[in-house]
Amino acid sequence: MIAVRMYDIIKHKRDGGALTKEEIEYFVSGVTDGSVPDYQAAALLMAVFLRGMDARETAELTLAMARSGETADLSGIQGVKVDKHSTGGVGDKTTLVAGPVAAACGVKVAKMSGRGLGHTGGTVDKLESIPGFRTALPPREFVDTVNRVGLSVIGQSGNLAPADKKLYALRDVTATVENASLISASIMSKKIASGADRILLDVKVGSGSFMRTAGQAEHLARMMVDIGARAGRRTAALLTNMDVPLGFAVGNTLEVAEAVETLRGHGPEDLTRVSLALASEMLYLAGKGSGESCQSQAREALASGAALEKFALMVETQGGDASAVRGLSPFPQAPYSRSVVSPRDGFITAMDAERCGTASVLLGAGRAKKEDPVDHEAGIRLLKKNGDAVSAGEPVALLYASREELFAAAEEVYLSSLSIGPEPPPETELILGRIEA
Amino acid sequence: MIAVRMYDIIKHKRDGGALTKEEIEYFVSGVTDGSVPDYQAAALLMAVFLRGMDARETAELTLAMARSGETADLSGIQGVKVDKHSTGGVGDKTTLVAGPVAAACGVKVAKMSGRGLGHTGGTVDKLESIPGFRTALPPREFVDTVNRVGLSVIGQSGNLAPADKKLYALRDVTATVENASLISASIMSKKIASGADRILLDVKVGSGSFMRTAGQAEHLARMMVDIGARAGRRTAALLTNMDVPLGFAVGNTLEVAEAVETLRGHGPEDLTRVSLALASEMLYLAGKGSGESCQSQAREALASGAALEKFALMVETQGGDASAVRGLSPFPQAPYSRSVVSPRDGFITAMDAERCGTASVLLGAGRAKKEDPVDHEAGIRLLKKNGDAVSAGEPVALLYASREELFAAAEEVYLSSLSIGPEPPPETELILGRIEA
Repeated sequence: MIAVRMYDIIKHKRDGGALTKEEIEYFVSGVTDGSVPDYQAAALLMAVFLRGMDARETAELTLAMARSGETADLSGIQGVKVDKHSTGGVGDKTTLVAGPVAAACGVKVAKMSGRGLGHTGGTVDKLESIPGFRTALPPREFVDTVNRVGLSVIGQSGNLAPADKKLYALRDVTATVENASLISASIMSKKIASGADRILLDVKVGSGSFMRTAGQAEHLARMMVDIGARAGRRTAALLTNMDVPLGFAVGNTLEVAEAVETLRGHGPEDLTRVSLALASEMLYLAGKGSGESCQSQAREALASGAALEKFALMVETQGGDASAVRGLSPFPQAPYSRSVVSPRDGFITAMDAERCGTASVLLGAGRAKKEDPVDHEAGIRLLKKNGDAVSAGEPVALLYASREELFAAAEEVYLSSLSIGPEPPPETELILGRIEA
Repeated sequence: MIAVRMYDIIKHKRDGGALTKEEIEYFVSGVTDGSVPDYQAAALLMAVFLRGMDARETAELTLAMARSGETADLSGIQGVKVDKHSTGGVGDKTTLVAGPVAAACGVKVAKMSGRGLGHTGGTVDKLESIPGFRTALPPREFVDTVNRVGLSVIGQSGNLAPADKKLYALRDVTATVENASLISASIMSKKIASGADRILLDVKVGSGSFMRTAGQAEHLARMMVDIGARAGRRTAALLTNMDVPLGFAVGNTLEVAEAVETLRGHGPEDLTRVSLALASEMLYLAGKGSGESCQSQAREALASGAALEKFALMVETQGGDASAVRGLSPFPQAPYSRSVVSPRDGFITAMDAERCGTASVLLGAGRAKKEDPVDHEAGIRLLKKNGDAVSAGEPVALLYASREELFAAAEEVYLSSLSIGPEPPPETELILGRIEA
């Protein structure tokens, strides 16, 4: 170990300096093995938050975090492995659509996913709402599944990027989360440790995401694409709208059902468009042809039913009951539902996606704390979205829960997410930009 | 307890806001009772360091810290009680001179003092070099001594401002020490908890002190004077030079001996001038007349021997052997001494007081860590100071230690503190300014 002391590292960043590679590695390995106490790590995180990190520092932080534990060995998978990561949204079930589409076009999708926390959902929770579906596969079975099906989605192993896990927990209680370098390093360290060759980032913009403006999101996206390039992993990013939840379903089983509808070609327009754009980018990153060719390959995989078949195969291979996916039985439904009605006539001019996500958590569909259980069937079916006309007393959403007493609070929060005005709002772009190194 | 969460307090300061009184009190009481974890306190300290605190916040932080533990009850002392605090220097024995002078003029000096740490010495260590002298008096005996003698100096009780103790320990390892608000709050919280009516601050400026420039020192002094005013304690500050150690003695017994020489009227000119200026300010703060009148009262107390008598009385009342103070026996001396000689002809153009203090610590006179013992007789007697002509091979200082092997390292550091040039340096001001609310 080189002779640098944590005190001097904190002071260096506090005074606006750029940390050296040695300083960053000392910090990350000290956090990982516990030799750097939390209070020194917290002081450095705040100094980084307020002083910033340049592109080199951010990339070195990311790589040090990626190397802080095990790295997934995907060498047993034949073909180009493309990972897709969303920065987190409400009603975001695009992985369940774009992954099967990309796999149906010959890309290998070996994806490690997270659980939901706060107002945003997690793909692992959604998949676990399918009876029997196993999200904890041993490495060999994961590789075999990808080779056989072209697609496998599992939960993140605890041994990938342990420094990120510790730093994230500390950032969460020291108000040092919302910093582009720290967010980038957190996301990209896990992606790099997960072993994919190419990385597609879906950077959400708007009220339901961490990045509220397109400018912030673009800054974050450029940083992550730069890190990917420095790490030798070709990376691109799409900026997509998250002012409004994607599709009409929020909640685990509800979202799986909507993803399956989309894979059948009958999904909501916004969800279909974003999912196809993401799948096309995955194909493009994998070298499957020009941008236009990739788009038509993706559309064809959806239209032909090949993508739906990939999804059903993955569910079956990972032990899940695919009968609802294959349309042989209905998806389970929550015992109680209640409609939310519009308080007045007008048009929905805005929906606060974060509040919508919070209403869903109140119904039991998500977690306020890491340890909380999730109610698979709970959630919200949106009946009206931005631009729709509503009349006083007309239902705008259906709430689902396993206990009736959960409705009152969720209804109040859901209604507070809606803005109703006399005129429809201007149309908003669904896909706001594309960033590549 | 009001419903504020530490996370929101950190975020508030992180984003540049001014903390409310409730937020500051929540933080300080949480640090005191341990309910706020160190990592959250560290994150807030770094945010304060980089975002700053305004005068109101600094005063509220100070008062919350002052109230975090016991406060000294000096109501049993008759008369106006004036405290004097130095921000820490090398060879600074002014308390041992100015205190007795002020007491001889009728001011009540009830002083709680600290121990030395790093390159700066502490008054408690100096007094403890007098055989038998007790610096830990029960509160009643402290009050009685001040009433009887007019002067008592004791060690700080552990129960005064415990929040300061905890925060200081945390700042020390998180690179958040050198911030004017945090320094001011630390100093003034202890002064306010110590119970004096009036507070005189000796803010040191230069290479041997924490404040390297007069601008920094003035900023700090104004902040502390403002806090005193807000706390209803009349406060003033002198800015005094600490580029060069005060007097010729550095080390505990050596400094007591020099203070006694000064009380006899034969002290070094710089020490005598600064001590009289401080004593005059103490008289002025206590309402003992005009500035000029206070100066002549102080001079008279020194010339008449009344101040020396006060010092001897205090030593005796606190259990010390005053024979050396009264000139009846010599002060003890270290078993070994060695002279440091000038490497070349010229004039001493600068002395780095911090390095000089460090050389003294290496000889055993001070502490690198809180737990280290102190060698009372170790230290340095300066033979040449700024502006003095020196010849190659001529002794410039005498080092004292209890083990000969300590000399080599101390000699090297001491020599590195000296700059020797062909011309004498310009004269520097000893007293650089005076700040009052």
